[in-house]
Amino acid sequence: MDGAVELIDQTRLPEELVVERVEDVSMLVDAIQRLAVRGAPAIGVAGGFGVVLARKEPDFPAAVESLRNARPTAVNLARMVDRVAARPPDQMLDEALTIRDEEIAASRAMGDRGAELVRDLVRSGGVRAMTICNTGGLATVERGTALAVVQTLHEAGLLEEALVLETRPLLQGARLTAWELRQAGAPHRVIVDSAAPFLLARGAANVVVTGADRVAANGDTANKIGTYALALGARQAGVPFVVVAPESTVDTATPSGADIEIEDRGAEEVVTIRGVPVAPHGTDAANPAFDVTPSELITALVTERRVVRLSEGERP
Amino acid sequence: MDGAVELIDQTRLPEELVVERVEDVSMLVDAIQRLAVRGAPAIGVAGGFGVVLARKEPDFPAAVESLRNARPTAVNLARMVDRVAARPPDQMLDEALTIRDEEIAASRAMGDRGAELVRDLVRSGGVRAMTICNTGGLATVERGTALAVVQTLHEAGLLEEALVLETRPLLQGARLTAWELRQAGAPHRVIVDSAAPFLLARGAANVVVTGADRVAANGDTANKIGTYALALGARQAGVPFVVVAPESTVDTATPSGADIEIEDRGAEEVVTIRGVPVAPHGTDAANPAFDVTPSELITALVTERRVVRLSEGERP
Repeated sequence: MDGAVELIDQTRLPEELVVERVEDVSMLVDAIQRLAVRGAPAIGVAGGFGVVLARKEPDFPAAVESLRNARPTAVNLARMVDRVAARPPDQMLDEALTIRDEEIAASRAMGDRGAELVRDLVRSGGVRAMTICNTGGLATVERGTALAVVQTLHEAGLLEEALVLETRPLLQGARLTAWELRQAGAPHRVIVDSAAPFLLARGAANVVVTGADRVAANGDTANKIGTYALALGARQAGVPFVVVAPESTVDTATPSGADIEIEDRGAEEVVTIRGVPVAPHGTDAANPAFDVTPSELITALVTERRVVRLSEGERP
Repeated sequence: MDGAVELIDQTRLPEELVVERVEDVSMLVDAIQRLAVRGAPAIGVAGGFGVVLARKEPDFPAAVESLRNARPTAVNLARMVDRVAARPPDQMLDEALTIRDEEIAASRAMGDRGAELVRDLVRSGGVRAMTICNTGGLATVERGTALAVVQTLHEAGLLEEALVLETRPLLQGARLTAWELRQAGAPHRVIVDSAAPFLLARGAANVVVTGADRVAANGDTANKIGTYALALGARQAGVPFVVVAPESTVDTATPSGADIEIEDRGAEEVVTIRGVPVAPHGTDAANPAFDVTPSELITALVTERRVVRLSEGERP
């Protein structure tokens, strides 16, 4: 590491593959806030390297604090920032690299463990997996979380189709997940988010797999807006709902979903799409970036270490 | 009527108010299919006038049949087409005008009756009404169905806020409903569709009002895709879910929602938004235009004549 972090600017996909060179903490905070880098594991790794960059800042503690607070819902960020910042300056880079290596190993383990669970849950025929947002390699440093499970199933010849929620407002499903599945050669179709519960009711998918931004002590899970609606649809249809996330996402210091702060990201993302206005000029919007899915709607949480059967009362 | 029908091209709003002059049946079928004219009552009235235009066609029965089948889910269309086509040619225009006048009266009655019901259901404080798609004047020939209720509440000083689902894929909520509420001076915010169940869980709205494209004999209701997800969210949150639709939408010949044909409108509407690609080139999509909400999720159906308490077992 030569004093800079290189990131794929995810806001430019699928049109352009742009690698952005981030040279200081304020550039990294900006990249996190405008979602150029996104996905809980990727944000955690980026935050770790951010602390390394912060050594060059005149006010190290203030720089670290600005990194910690760049996205309030993602617990990984604060945790990884703290972990690197707690080391002596000459060991910070090693610690950040260790975090990256841990995430790579965790992604492989989640893919394998999650695919095994899905095989058990979907007894017969091919897997038709519904997923929201982007939880693949772009969101992490390897194969991702929920999308690692989809890819592992595809490589095992078990994936019949992935149904990808487009994931308004920022369309990470349509833009990023469809792009990754295309790279992987995995069969997939995109759907509008609001169609998911109805398509589940009509039998279009036999499992739902999602990521998580934060899992509370009681198993309530914060994730991309729309996850809760998807979980309601899965329960109504009797389809298993599986959350795939690294242990670093589990936050036992947060008792329940009611204690998770939900960012409102403002009207602009809702009333314009890829720069095109879709509502009359000046229209206001509510824009919660995340929602909370109660643990009783979640069949299981899969981490790199274990399977926690939340709907059966197990707790992380 | 001088041998043509004038329509607002709803695909051009909110950017432009374009009045399109429709001079023959094939133009009208095209306008209905590309949603330049949309909303069950408006389609019904347009279909009635379409039969008047069909008198000029060389093959009157074929022209009438093409009108009847322009949109399979909307029962009003076939019904109003049949009603006008059953008259002697010199009385067809009068019949089409009668249908229009009936829709105007029905809209006023639905607005009043629905507002009264909502006042009863929301006991204290202002009404915070969530609604999907466009069910206002643009969808009808007067004030609409569900949006007539919202407007009537606003005029009575009872509306605190309307929360408008943007309604992907074609964004009728963001484009059209926000435009109509702005014209009416009614307070409103737009939300992405997938945020609705979570915002209901957090108490952001105290009633949901929607229109309907078809109500089956058992009360199951076909409406814009996303309505079923919204109904699941409302039930989970204990928020009343009210369907507002004219009697002409009730189709007792269809036993239940399982018997309602659901149009798939193809990938293009999903993978591009207002002409902008939002997924990698060539990405496929599933695009059900409607969904079916089971009657047990519907607090009440309000028509111009009555209130049917569907969730209590009453049947239309």
